[in-house]
Parts: sequence; C-alpha cells; structure tokens
Amino acid sequence: MLEKPIAVLGGGNGGHTMAADLTLAGYKVNFYEHPLFKEKFKKTLETGRVEMRGVGRQGVAEIHKVTLDMEEAISDVELINLVIPALGHDRFFEEMIPFLQDGQTVVIWPDNYGSLRLRQLLEERAPEKKITIAGTNTLPYGTRLAGPAQVNLLLMAPEVIISALPAKETERILPELQELFPMLKPAQNVLAASFSNPNPIVHPAGSLLNTGRIQYSKGDFYLYREGITEAVARAIRAVYDETAALAEAFGFEVLQYEDRDFRTTTSIMGVAFQAPFDTIGVIASVIGPKSLQDRYIVEDVPYGLVPLSEFGKKLGVPTPVIDSLITIGSIVCDQDFWKTGRTLEELGLADMDKDDIIRLVEEG
Amino acid sequence: MLEKPIAVLGGGNGGHTMAADLTLAGYKVNFYEHPLFKEKFKKTLETGRVEMRGVGRQGVAEIHKVTLDMEEAISDVELINLVIPALGHDRFFEEMIPFLQDGQTVVIWPDNYGSLRLRQLLEERAPEKKITIAGTNTLPYGTRLAGPAQVNLLLMAPEVIISALPAKETERILPELQELFPMLKPAQNVLAASFSNPNPIVHPAGSLLNTGRIQYSKGDFYLYREGITEAVARAIRAVYDETAALAEAFGFEVLQYEDRDFRTTTSIMGVAFQAPFDTIGVIASVIGPKSLQDRYIVEDVPYGLVPLSEFGKKLGVPTPVIDSLITIGSIVCDQDFWKTGRTLEELGLADMDKDDIIRLVEEG
Repeated sequence: MLEKPIAVLGGGNGGHTMAADLTLAGYKVNFYEHPLFKEKFKKTLETGRVEMRGVGRQGVAEIHKVTLDMEEAISDVELINLVIPALGHDRFFEEMIPFLQDGQTVVIWPDNYGSLRLRQLLEERAPEKKITIAGTNTLPYGTRLAGPAQVNLLLMAPEVIISALPAKETERILPELQELFPMLKPAQNVLAASFSNPNPIVHPAGSLLNTGRIQYSKGDFYLYREGITEAVARAIRAVYDETAALAEAFGFEVLQYEDRDFRTTTSIMGVAFQAPFDTIGVIASVIGPKSLQDRYIVEDVPYGLVPLSEFGKKLGVPTPVIDSLITIGSIVCDQDFWKTGRTLEELGLADMDKDDIIRLVEEG
Repeated sequence: MLEKPIAVLGGGNGGHTMAADLTLAGYKVNFYEHPLFKEKFKKTLETGRVEMRGVGRQGVAEIHKVTLDMEEAISDVELINLVIPALGHDRFFEEMIPFLQDGQTVVIWPDNYGSLRLRQLLEERAPEKKITIAGTNTLPYGTRLAGPAQVNLLLMAPEVIISALPAKETERILPELQELFPMLKPAQNVLAASFSNPNPIVHPAGSLLNTGRIQYSKGDFYLYREGITEAVARAIRAVYDETAALAEAFGFEVLQYEDRDFRTTTSIMGVAFQAPFDTIGVIASVIGPKSLQDRYIVEDVPYGLVPLSEFGKKLGVPTPVIDSLITIGSIVCDQDFWKTGRTLEELGLADMDKDDIIRLVEEG
C-alpha cells in the first residue's frame, strides 16, 4: 500500500489536513476536491502546496497530485480516504462509484453511517465490484483552514476507532492503516464507530440550547468556553445515555466516558480531542458555531441524530431527548430534518430486524 | 360587590400591584399572603402600605387589611382574586376551601387551568358550597416589585379575557368585574382563556433556546432584547400554532396574532402587553430569566405546556414542539415535568372525551 499514492477526497479543513499530514510523513497523496467547490480550492489546485502549522507535523507539503478529476484521483490507488461532511457523501459516492476498482479500500472519516450507505449504493449500481469499505468514529484532527491552502491543526484525537464493513475484515486492513494513522484502534463494527462519534452527542444539544446567543452574537460565540454550561452538559449527557442504551440493545459498546467528563465546558470533546499541553484551553478557543446553518446542526442532526432515532424505533429503545433535538433543530433551521435526515431506508436496513443488522455489520 | 372589601390573595409582584391598584382606585382590599412567604411580605404586613410607580395609578396605597390569615382575608367578601403562580395553586386552594362561603366568586389570574383544578377539589372536599369560579388568560399587569412594598408597573395588557366555569355564567359576573378591570373581555370558556395565556407560548421556547446564555451570563440576560432572535421566534410561533390547532380541534378560538407579531424580539408579548408610549423598548428592558429555575420554565412548562400536550394526546392533535420543550426543559431543570406537571387527572378530565370536556366548561 505504501508504494502507491493514497487518495484523499474532500478539500475542506479535514481533507487539507490529512493530505498535508500524509505528504509530510513521506507518502504520495492524490488530493481531490469536487468541481462544485473549486473556487475555495483554487490556491491548493494552482500551487499544489499546503502549509501546515499547529500541533502536528510542520511545514509546506508538496502534494503529489491535486485534482478535480475523480478518475485521476482514485485510479491505481489502494487506499481512498473520504474526508467530508456526511452531507456530501451521496454526491461523492456518485462520482466515485464508476471509477472504483477491485481490491480498493475506502475509509470514511468519520463514518456517520456512510459505509452502510456506500454499500447500499454499490449493491444497486455495481454489485460486481470487490471493494472494502471502512469507517471511523471521528477525524483524528481538530483542525481549521487558516486561509487558502493553510492548515492550523489545533488538536489531535488520542484514539480513533475504525471498523470494516463487515467487521470480520477489520483485522486484515488495520495494520497497514495504523502505519499511516497510529491512533487507530479496532471498533466492534461500523455502527459502534458511528455511535461513538462525539459530534452528534455534543454539537446539537450544545448549539440548539444556545440558539438565541448564536444568532444574537453574530459569530462571536465559543461553544466550549461559554455555551456548555451545567444544564447544557446535562443535555449532552442525556443524548450520550440514549445512544449508549441503544448500543447496549444492539449488543455492542460505545466509547465510555467518566462522569467528570460530562461536567466540564468541553464535555466529552475534551477527552476525544486532546491538545498536547492544554486540553481545556485549546478546545475552548475553537470559535463557533457562527450561525445556525452550521455543520454542528445541519450535519449532526440529520446524519447523526436521525439515524439514532430510527434505530431507537426499530429496537423499541426510547430516544426522547434525541427526538426533541431533531424536532427543535428542524424549527430552528427551518427544514424538516425528520425528512432530510439519513433514514434506515437509505442505508438498506429498513426491512431488517436487529439480528439481521448485526449480522450484516459483523459478518456481511 | 363594591361596598364590601375585595380579597387579593398572593403577595408577589402581581398581588402587590393589584392590591395597590384597587386601593388607589378607591376600593377596600383584604391583602393576603401565605404564612410560608411571610419574610418577603414583612414590610407590607407591618406598614399596611404599598407604593406604586410606573405606568398606572401612582402613589402610596393604604391597604384596608393586610393579613396572613385566610379566614380573615376572605370572610364576608364577594370577590376573591387569586394572583399567584400556578405552582402555588394547590397550596392556596387548600387554605381557601374551608373558608369559602356561598355566593363568593373566585377569579384566578391567570387561570392556567386553576379553575378546573379548584372545581375538582371543591367536588371532592366541599361539594355543597355554591362558589363561582372564573379564570383569565393573563394578569393585566407586566410588573415587578422594586423593593419591599414597592411596585414598579412596567406594562398594562390592553385586553384580558375571562370566563367563568362554566362559561354560561360569564355574562352574569362580567359587568361588575369590568368596573374594577375595564380591560376584561369575555373568553369563550376557561380553556380558551388558559390556551390564550401568552406565557407558555413565549417563555419556555424563549428561555430554553437560550439555556447556555442564561447560565453563562449569571443573570445579565434580557429575553426580549437579545434572546428572541429569528429562529427563537420561529419556535415560539410553532408552539402557538400547535396550541391554536388544539383549540380548533376543541371548537374554540385562541387570541389571534398577525404574522408580523411573531417576527419581533418581543414576539406576541409586545402585543399582549403594551406600554403607553413605547411597546418595544419597555418590554425589551424586562431583565431575565436570571436562572433556569425561573417561572418562565418551572411554571410555564409544567402548568402551561404539559396540559396542552395531554389535551393533544386526548384529541389526537400532534404537539411535537410542545413535547420537545417539555422533554428538554426536564433535562435542563433536572426534574421530570412530565410527572410534576398539571395532568388531566388532577383537573378531573382524564376520563372525559372532547364533548364531555366542552360541555363541562361551557354548560357545567
């Protein structure tokens, strides 16, 4: 795997960071962005360089190949890393599927049920292709673009969990991935990975219970410094508890946190993402969300909370707090996340019972 | 009615204002506070005077009688005004019932389903007593105590609706009440009055969507200046729309508002309470809620939203936003409002269908 280029798809904060990080580590990276977003990607595309600062590898990464052409990006690579918000999954999957080749591995960072969605689309469109799909619970990077082609890496996750779909293949792909990403550990299955994503646990409750402030402050808002008060932390914990109960009903575990981890302004994000020197201070300096049309709501509610609610209904596990956040989030953002969110139908799970689903994610 | 003293029960913001207002208008007032709250009532009790400033009658009101003794307060009066948060209804009803006399009228400001609760308790404890019960949609006063025995009347409601229970008796009691309170208009029935209380419509959505800010600012928070942003106003409107749909299913109407009334920071409160000169500025200067244990949540969720949700279930009218606010409010305040809230059981309505309920509130 290490001889051939590695594809990194997605030219946002996470994609730039991964492309630069792997390049500075000595790997050849094919860095792709969808043509829809070419304006923001312009400087990276023209110079082929990404400057990286912050807590990780430092310097100017000379990227092997920067492209808007999916075929060019993923032909003749073994590993494809998809590093985009779940909102863009379908669009990238559509572009990707025609050019996928037997033997390739697609890792979705973070999974957010994207592995199940890609599997479903492959079954419909290209059932003959032999692709390994895997998903993680989070990006390893807490990161922001400081400007065009400039990364500021604020935080690194000390541990990221990953599973192949099905999980019986995790063991086969993990060692090579760990060479690139030493923080990777095996997850029980892709659902355990998605359920362990801290974003849907922390972001919607944290943001929606500060709706007025986010709008009134017009962008001068720091969720982890001022937004997560004691009562907001209680709501975050309630979302976590419902998620953990759902995992338990399925028979797997989500990442565990200490009681005290729910009693800080950084909540479990302070555990999931750790800066080398100052875990509280650095995460507290992350600004935002600056508006209600932020990923914290418009990604994490429909792609994080809606599937949890749907699984809850299927398993008979009540998810009242999650449901309430979906309903309130829909009003706040003026769109019906119950309808636009990721459904079990889209994941190919609508007609399956609990045992079918577990068999699918563990055995295939 | 005008010869005898008028009882005002409840020594908070509203009770002080009504006792002073009626006294300055020339009436004899028996002003009662429950002994539990005697510390805060001390100066009023000792001096028998309340100083009133603001937008209404001005001056020092020499109250006819100030007392901690319920019997003394309500014996030989014709009109009893209960002016307390719904949280205290049961406690005051318990004190009041033994001393109620045939022919008395009890008006509950605002009703918040208290009329139905009092009727139910009277049926259980003293079914022989002939009492007229009535309830309004709101207090006429937007008011705060500026200090012990000092009222600052900020706003007056231009219109308050009232119904007797049953509504067929409204016509009989209204003319005399209008002499005291010229802003009174007839409501279709006590449910129409309770449904038309703007507090449960505006306060829980407004407060809960600013949970983080209320705690972080430690009291430096103005709901009507900074808290009701566009998205928060949308949530307030959603609560109103669910309430109006419920009223429609019952066959009565709630107070109507213009579309633009939902698009201001003062929302419908700016319509319900109008200062003589400056409708926006004055209400925007009302500080609070200063904490999450405020009436805006701990009264308006259990005594305002919970009954609406229960009626919704009974009538098959969905109330998802109201339900979500009850669930989120319970987490935020760390108490289960679904359990502590006012239930149809307590109101004696649990076993009735829609037609029974309407018959009860209209015909008796």
